[in-house]
Amino acid sequence: MTEEERYELGFKTLNALSDGSAQKVIESLGDVAPELARQIVSWGFGEVYSRPALVPRDRQLLTIGMLTALGGCEPQLEVHIGNALNVGLTPAEIIEALLQAAGYCGFPKALNATFVAKKVFGERGLLPVAGA
Amino acid sequence: MTEEERYELGFKTLNALSDGSAQKVIESLGDVAPELARQIVSWGFGEVYSRPALVPRDRQLLTIGMLTALGGCEPQLEVHIGNALNVGLTPAEIIEALLQAAGYCGFPKALNATFVAKKVFGERGLLPVAGA
Amino acid sequence: MTEEERYELGFKTLNALSDGSAQKVIESLGDVAPELARQIVSWGFGEVYSRPALVPRDRQLLTIGMLTALGGCEPQLEVHIGNALNVGLTPAEIIEALLQAAGYCGFPKALNATFVAKKVFGERGLLPVAGA
Amino acid sequence: MTEEERYELGFKTLNALSDGSAQKVIESLGDVAPELARQIVSWGFGEVYSRPALVPRDRQLLTIGMLTALGGCEPQLEVHIGNALNVGLTPAEIIEALLQAAGYCGFPKALNATFVAKKVFGERGLLPVAGA
Amino acid sequence: MTEEERYELGFKTLNALSDGSAQKVIESLGDVAPELARQIVSWGFGEVYSRPALVPRDRQLLTIGMLTALGGCEPQLEVHIGNALNVGLTPAEIIEALLQAAGYCGFPKALNATFVAKKVFGERGLLPVAGA
Amino acid sequence: MTEEERYELGFKTLNALSDGSAQKVIESLGDVAPELARQIVSWGFGEVYSRPALVPRDRQLLTIGMLTALGGCEPQLEVHIGNALNVGLTPAEIIEALLQAAGYCGFPKALNATFVAKKVFGERGLLPVAGA
Repeated sequence: MTEEERYELGFKTLNALSDGSAQKVIESLGDVAPELARQIVSWGFGEVYSRPALVPRDRQLLTIGMLTALGGCEPQLEVHIGNALNVGLTPAEIIEALLQAAGYCGFPKALNATFVAKKVFGERGLLPVAGA
Repeated sequence: MTEEERYELGFKTLNALSDGSAQKVIESLGDVAPELARQIVSWGFGEVYSRPALVPRDRQLLTIGMLTALGGCEPQLEVHIGNALNVGLTPAEIIEALLQAAGYCGFPKALNATFVAKKVFGERGLLPVAGA
Repeated sequence: MTEEERYELGFKTLNALSDGSAQKVIESLGDVAPELARQIVSWGFGEVYSRPALVPRDRQLLTIGMLTALGGCEPQLEVHIGNALNVGLTPAEIIEALLQAAGYCGFPKALNATFVAKKVFGERGLLPVAGA
Repeated sequence: MTEEERYELGFKTLNALSDGSAQKVIESLGDVAPELARQIVSWGFGEVYSRPALVPRDRQLLTIGMLTALGGCEPQLEVHIGNALNVGLTPAEIIEALLQAAGYCGFPKALNATFVAKKVFGERGLLPVAGA
Repeated sequence: MTEEERYELGFKTLNALSDGSAQKVIESLGDVAPELARQIVSWGFGEVYSRPALVPRDRQLLTIGMLTALGGCEPQLEVHIGNALNVGLTPAEIIEALLQAAGYCGFPKALNATFVAKKVFGERGLLPVAGA
Repeated sequence: MTEEERYELGFKTLNALSDGSAQKVIESLGDVAPELARQIVSWGFGEVYSRPALVPRDRQLLTIGMLTALGGCEPQLEVHIGNALNVGLTPAEIIEALLQAAGYCGFPKALNATFVAKKVFGERGLLPVAGA
């Protein structure tokens, strides 16, 4: 792939995943860190995320786990919980993942992530969570 | 203990410790993660916290240390610094713990926790901290 | 569930998942922290892991992400990468998850986890990783 | 050095570095944690920072890297990115450091730090970043 | 206090707390980082730890919580669990603290700390833990 | 740049920086995670590290700070402290950076990094550290 093709594939991959929230983050980097923005698209989505070895649902589940464990990544969790819903994870599955996170990362980090999920679900009219 | 007894013991333990702030967190989980709420009460407080091997003052001191070290857990620190006051830790002892945290976790995390303590103490009319 | 039933369900869940490594960790706690051992089985596996809302493959993918992000959890990663293989994740999928982890947790944590995976795969005769 | 001399050196070092933001943090500790305030000045700046073995530009570059990696230290990053500009790091160098941080700490932590930089640069009229 | 008095107080405080393990760490810094060694004694123990606002038992309980939460600090945990025993925390209290840590930091970090405790207790002939 | 050019630039950049230790890590990934190896070279060194906006000495100082703060990255610290020496940081500067790290990340993480530095310096005959 040429550099241009990588960016295009990344952009297309990102658009299939996110309905605006990730794109807004990328755009807001334009006047401060355009190279970081370019690398997130070209490398993060064009080279890594677009690989077929894991389907998007798997990648989003994994990402929610990593962001919860890192801590302090609530803005990214908000984007990725939205993306997770877009690629087929149900609210009940996301909440179940965060219950499991309590055992591996402790209740405080699980709570922080759960309240981000509550915000995202609320904005999409998905509260109360069915089956939770 | 039956499941119901565990929940009741947890609820009673939590009420002896916290005058509303922890309970509010639990309630706000109701429509998004009721199982997480139930486990915090039944397991966290009914099974673990209620064990007699450490008194509540010890547990709160420990918890303040862990939350400061984890980072990004300011909402939980707010609840637990309040609980710490409820079970007999003085503002000066809490501030001393956070001074020690500077040496083990670094000044930035100690500062974040100290400003949470300032907020909690301020709401209870405990500023300036006597003896600090 | 009674306490005994929870423990039995946890034990059964754990045995379906792990062929000895997790059990060895539990046993080694016997003389130092028997209550922690009991809670990992009864609560971690009996109450949380056994819930049907996520299948074991999903739970292991999530756990690998969380342990990689936390850092310093190589002993647990070794157990859980083995468990991941036991419930159907392929070596190539695990390696792909760790490539994605590079973007979210940075290369150093991804490398630490990858070298644990190399050890586990090597012990099972799964090197070189097919399709990686 | 006597205790008074350490404090004076720390105060002078801090004033050469920061045009008000660090001082404001120190002052706001006055009624809650005066000893922590004193130790940050006397020890952090009087004993450690004032040592000649690394110049302030080096120390600020290092500090930005550490605060980005720790996560959850956005208030401290805001102070130290301002200080970094004061001692000669350019906006483009700070942004380049945060691009490198993406590889070592992952994109989420790099993004959190970059948005703090955007705020600081914006307040100083340094957007868009020249050469970025 | 003069610089010499601070060092002497720190040295005396450290000797009352630790029967050799902390001292060995300090000594091993001699050829690589003598200033770091001096600051741990003068500042960490001479200025902070020696303050009367918290008794040593409280400080060690707090430190065990912080080191468990930070992760990757097993060498320091080994020293501080030994110190904790020296100042009156019982093995059962330390193990109870680590059970509580499971809820706040997750099982993996609690396990890592528990196996350090097992090592320290074993070397002192304190296994199996009475009352655990 | 074509993909091949990126890899070549990364390889050349890495060889100018590291005299074998980083290359050994890359090679050891060959049978388990060849894509991760390729991305570290092509992206980490070919795209990011080779950018002229920061000189290698700055990048290594920054990296040592980040790895110390992350914790649990001793294998990477070993490689990068060696690289830091290769690009002109002196042992005394590296040790000074780790003294500053004590204030931002706490003594335990600073100690872990300092003992890695001691190992690297010892292997190169640089102990005791001149001027430390």
